[in-house]
Amino acid sequence: MKFTIRRKELLQSIQDVTSVISSKTVIPILSGLKIDVHANHIVLTGSNSDITIQRTIPNIVDEEEIITKMEKGSIVLPVPQFPEIISKLPEDIVDITVGENYKTVISSGTAVFTLYGQNSEEYPVIQHQQVEPHFSYHIKQLKSIIKQTVFAVSSMETRPVLTGINVIIKEKEITFTATDSHRLAMRTSRLEDSSIDEANIVIPGKSMQELQKVLDEKLETVQIAILNNQIVFFTDHLFFSSRLLSGNYPDTSRLIPNNSETKIQIYTRDFIQTIERAALLSNREQNNVIDLETKENNNIQISGKMQEVGEVTEQLPAISVEGNELKISFSSKYMLDSLKAMDHETVIINFTGAMRPFVIKTPDDESILQLILPVKTF
Amino acid sequence: MKFTIRRKELLQSIQDVTSVISSKTVIPILSGLKIDVHANHIVLTGSNSDITIQRTIPNIVDEEEIITKMEKGSIVLPVPQFPEIISKLPEDIVDITVGENYKTVISSGTAVFTLYGQNSEEYPVIQHQQVEPHFSYHIKQLKSIIKQTVFAVSSMETRPVLTGINVIIKEKEITFTATDSHRLAMRTSRLEDSSIDEANIVIPGKSMQELQKVLDEKLETVQIAILNNQIVFFTDHLFFSSRLLSGNYPDTSRLIPNNSETKIQIYTRDFIQTIERAALLSNREQNNVIDLETKENNNIQISGKMQEVGEVTEQLPAISVEGNELKISFSSKYMLDSLKAMDHETVIINFTGAMRPFVIKTPDDESILQLILPVKTF
Repeated sequence: MKFTIRRKELLQSIQDVTSVISSKTVIPILSGLKIDVHANHIVLTGSNSDITIQRTIPNIVDEEEIITKMEKGSIVLPVPQFPEIISKLPEDIVDITVGENYKTVISSGTAVFTLYGQNSEEYPVIQHQQVEPHFSYHIKQLKSIIKQTVFAVSSMETRPVLTGINVIIKEKEITFTATDSHRLAMRTSRLEDSSIDEANIVIPGKSMQELQKVLDEKLETVQIAILNNQIVFFTDHLFFSSRLLSGNYPDTSRLIPNNSETKIQIYTRDFIQTIERAALLSNREQNNVIDLETKENNNIQISGKMQEVGEVTEQLPAISVEGNELKISFSSKYMLDSLKAMDHETVIINFTGAMRPFVIKTPDDESILQLILPVKTF
Repeated sequence: MKFTIRRKELLQSIQDVTSVISSKTVIPILSGLKIDVHANHIVLTGSNSDITIQRTIPNIVDEEEIITKMEKGSIVLPVPQFPEIISKLPEDIVDITVGENYKTVISSGTAVFTLYGQNSEEYPVIQHQQVEPHFSYHIKQLKSIIKQTVFAVSSMETRPVLTGINVIIKEKEITFTATDSHRLAMRTSRLEDSSIDEANIVIPGKSMQELQKVLDEKLETVQIAILNNQIVFFTDHLFFSSRLLSGNYPDTSRLIPNNSETKIQIYTRDFIQTIERAALLSNREQNNVIDLETKENNNIQISGKMQEVGEVTEQLPAISVEGNELKISFSSKYMLDSLKAMDHETVIINFTGAMRPFVIKTPDDESILQLILPVKTF
């Protein structure tokens, strides 16, 4: 195996596949990065058995030959050393040649590295050439959906299924839901031209975070295929597959209240800053719980208290306050996560009493919904 | 106690005194920040009993009144809450008023914080009004000396005196030395107009790092006084005192070889990059040891080896190589620390054999010297 490549393009692709590679893998060879040299392109593979990422680099990009002197073959090289070496080489061009016993010589300028590679035949086979995509999706939209839901997945392994995002396809609609049982984030969108009508799967939150990092926003769409226990995402030069979580995801629809007793519309940025201030004096052991109280003239009051340290009270004008008077306590962390995920100038919050979950939406977009359970403090 | 102040100036001064405040203090009240309001200025104090930092804010700066409504008094407020609150307040102006039982109200716009303060009479008294400085020193130069020596202090508490920087004043010369017994950094300079002729003290490395952070380079000079077991640094608005380390600092002068068997002059930046590459394949357990070998035509060869991973060799041209052939092994980390501290286009390295300490200098500056002990690898 042999090739000469522009360092910049190689480095970029290495970074995309390296993030999932871990030295703590049960399959030792997965601690390395696999390189395959084909006739007109090379393929880099990184995997942690849950997630596999492959990057293809074609030998010609924009009519420029970026890979030359190609001789077919494959090798597995040690991480983090191989990526570190490529990032620190002195010249713009790098030569990689595999010799006897998988010894791989990497040279650039007068720097000559020898890495003891491993036999790529021991690397698990990734079968994806045969996979037919079921539907395609806008990359920008998918990345925004991940951002708006993934923070709400559970970090506790006690209910493994809650560490994932539930994706339901039904009646030409796709719904993404994440909950840790204290809060919930949900986003729906239309799904046209899908070759599957129904699906109900759970994708690990960590996989979605990795996917968000490697999806290139300069591309328009990503192709998606849902297999038996796997989901696969493709673009021209990327292949990303993730194991699915098994187990039944709870039916969350009945959690979401339909009525509203108090409805507040407020400027998101001002609200975020006021909550951040109140959180400074709130009890950390209790997820930084703060209080919200409706006041006269469309004002709301936010307050916090930290034992033996102090307390804080701040009034801020809402755009509107409708319905019953309200006093409620909630985790400032959950509220801030939700408000920041909404990414909208104003938000509408619908409360149904101090002890019931409340719902955060934006004024003109029914596709996104955040729900938070209040905290009993009195 | 009461005052109204521009938030920007208060925040800047708070940051300077807060860095030394720790919740893990043996004297509980030192976990807070002390504020004293005087007739025409306020004073902020932070201390961890080793280091004390005070910042004075005058009520008038550049003919603008930045503090108003002043009522004398003092209070100790909780950290990190007080600094966090000031940094997140909504408006440019902040009111601070101490009421009954040391309850302190901090208000800005509609945000009202109450912090439970502590009686400042319990705070250790800092006597510095009486201290007469012994000499003054250029701030830029002092900061550069700290940067060029402090990295070499020992991080091991087994010989506490080596965790400090040794400062010797003798015959109108001041010398700063740091060593962890594997490497040494030394810097000398002239000292005119000092009211003390001789001194030999050890300042904790951590104190010097804190001092470097708070010294304002916009000012010309800092006044310095050496007391019995303390050193004090003053500028117009800053007071910084540090405990000195007791115990005899070793006489390091006899460690420094006077002769040279091999002399290499080399471009610092290229040398740093080559060493960084070789360090990628070097054994971490042994402080990333790498090898240097002189070659023909003023070339040197740098190489590294990491068991079971790989090896690296790189030749680079030196400006000159004089004297005996040489093969030597040393810690790449120590070499990189020294080279980066030199901050000069080229360096001269004088070796006296593979087993003897070697000395790094710059071509035209005798005031700075770095020494590294080689490692036996063969």
